[in-house]
Amino acid sequence: MNNINIALIQHSFKKNKQDTIKCTIDLIQKAAKNGANLVCLQELHTTEYFCQSENVEFFKYAESFNDDIECFSKVAKDNQVVLVSSLFEKRAKGLYHNTSIVFDKDGRIAGKYRKMHIPDDPSFYEKFYFTIGDNEFKPIETSLGKIGVLICWDQWYPEAARLMALSGAEILIYPTAIGFDRSDSNDEKQRQLEAWIGIQRGHAIANGVFVAAINRVGFEAFGDSGIEFWGNSFIFGPQGELLAKAKSESDEIIQTTIDMDRISQVRNIWPFLRDRRIEFYSNITKRYID
Amino acid sequence: MNNINIALIQHSFKKNKQDTIKCTIDLIQKAAKNGANLVCLQELHTTEYFCQSENVEFFKYAESFNDDIECFSKVAKDNQVVLVSSLFEKRAKGLYHNTSIVFDKDGRIAGKYRKMHIPDDPSFYEKFYFTIGDNEFKPIETSLGKIGVLICWDQWYPEAARLMALSGAEILIYPTAIGFDRSDSNDEKQRQLEAWIGIQRGHAIANGVFVAAINRVGFEAFGDSGIEFWGNSFIFGPQGELLAKAKSESDEIIQTTIDMDRISQVRNIWPFLRDRRIEFYSNITKRYID
Repeated sequence: MNNINIALIQHSFKKNKQDTIKCTIDLIQKAAKNGANLVCLQELHTTEYFCQSENVEFFKYAESFNDDIECFSKVAKDNQVVLVSSLFEKRAKGLYHNTSIVFDKDGRIAGKYRKMHIPDDPSFYEKFYFTIGDNEFKPIETSLGKIGVLICWDQWYPEAARLMALSGAEILIYPTAIGFDRSDSNDEKQRQLEAWIGIQRGHAIANGVFVAAINRVGFEAFGDSGIEFWGNSFIFGPQGELLAKAKSESDEIIQTTIDMDRISQVRNIWPFLRDRRIEFYSNITKRYID
Repeated sequence: MNNINIALIQHSFKKNKQDTIKCTIDLIQKAAKNGANLVCLQELHTTEYFCQSENVEFFKYAESFNDDIECFSKVAKDNQVVLVSSLFEKRAKGLYHNTSIVFDKDGRIAGKYRKMHIPDDPSFYEKFYFTIGDNEFKPIETSLGKIGVLICWDQWYPEAARLMALSGAEILIYPTAIGFDRSDSNDEKQRQLEAWIGIQRGHAIANGVFVAAINRVGFEAFGDSGIEFWGNSFIFGPQGELLAKAKSESDEIIQTTIDMDRISQVRNIWPFLRDRRIEFYSNITKRYID
């Protein structure tokens, strides 16, 4: 495909799983009617972002992993779109992953990606819920080409983006759940938002690939506090050019047609892949060089 | 040192080497009087950017490598600053490098870095002049701490920035010579400038380090064409926050005090180094994964 119409579905949690899935499906249908070939959902889109606490009750969400797959497989097929979902996977008793299942437009599972880098910061206690992925950084083959799916915290790691690009990914997709702590200053919030956008823009530039991130919106309370998810879902082109960006507070479909020939155009005149000094990169596999 | 006053010296070529060096020294003195501890110069700052053609005549500039070292060693000592220079090195007959010599404030050579990634694009025929460096990506120890010196084309490679940070560099310094082709559209020029800034901002964020780039200004004609060097020298903090930026057309000293404690503050709450999946990164040393 030389042109792909890509849609990012950004929304808030709708009080329960059932209503949230209904909202997601409505937005997918809307995007498909508007010509989308590729629809991308936010991280853990069927539920609230439950990692604000460490609570075994939430493992119940992973029990319906297979039902969730069945549901979104049907949605992909009904709408004839390649669909990037983000689900809570129960792999075995007491072994769970933060997993993206990618469906091709016939509903078939094209591939899956288990989140490799897992955060653990105040209000983001993911290491309690999710085992680190054990897949290679391999793009998923779809009828639209090779898609490099990575998830949220992965976005801070240039190594992940690079490995996907070296394996032929031409689009990187990051389902995400990131937001503000309301007690932070406006300046701090602005720095965090710009850092989040900036690092991913860097991956687009370094690798000459399209990069899209899909983030949720809305305030999700927990105790006296909570997270104000900052939206701002975006798509960058292979020169780091901004193609589309969502607002910070509203449910929104970001949709645009991307021209895959741009990748060759950009890479041919800025041939970064040509000049990598691979014989000097082996220390990248060290924790620290001391 | 918890605080470093850093100055970036951005200027145009002054028609000949002698006058250009005089301008550079004047600006270094000015920065030092204004409190600079660390002064950083642009790429190949003693001459025009001669790589617009492949011409053996220009190797004459490398003949004075040792004189250039002597000159800038004295400047560092006279002004009591750590000085990052960028010179044309003759290593042997027919073997040349694009080399940064870093002087400590006593004039002693603290270390050198030979440019590792060498470009070759229309108007930037560097592969004719410069052999690829054979140093590791190791920061240079100075009285101000470990400085990661990289040069121009290196800035497009996240691997180089990562290896410097893993080896303890807390500031990355990129002497640079980059500019516009006047025949490009304004939109294309804007994309190029933003990509150049964006990728380096990404290195600051990914690694939690300060990043500074020093670029020349002015139009340097060659034949019917030439390069319009775009200036815009900048310093980013470890969260990717912009600390200072120069204009696009004028000689300018960018000078600010950076607080090295910011690195711990940023890294402790955004602990990207903690979660690297090093056991899955070894394919970074492949040219392409096919």
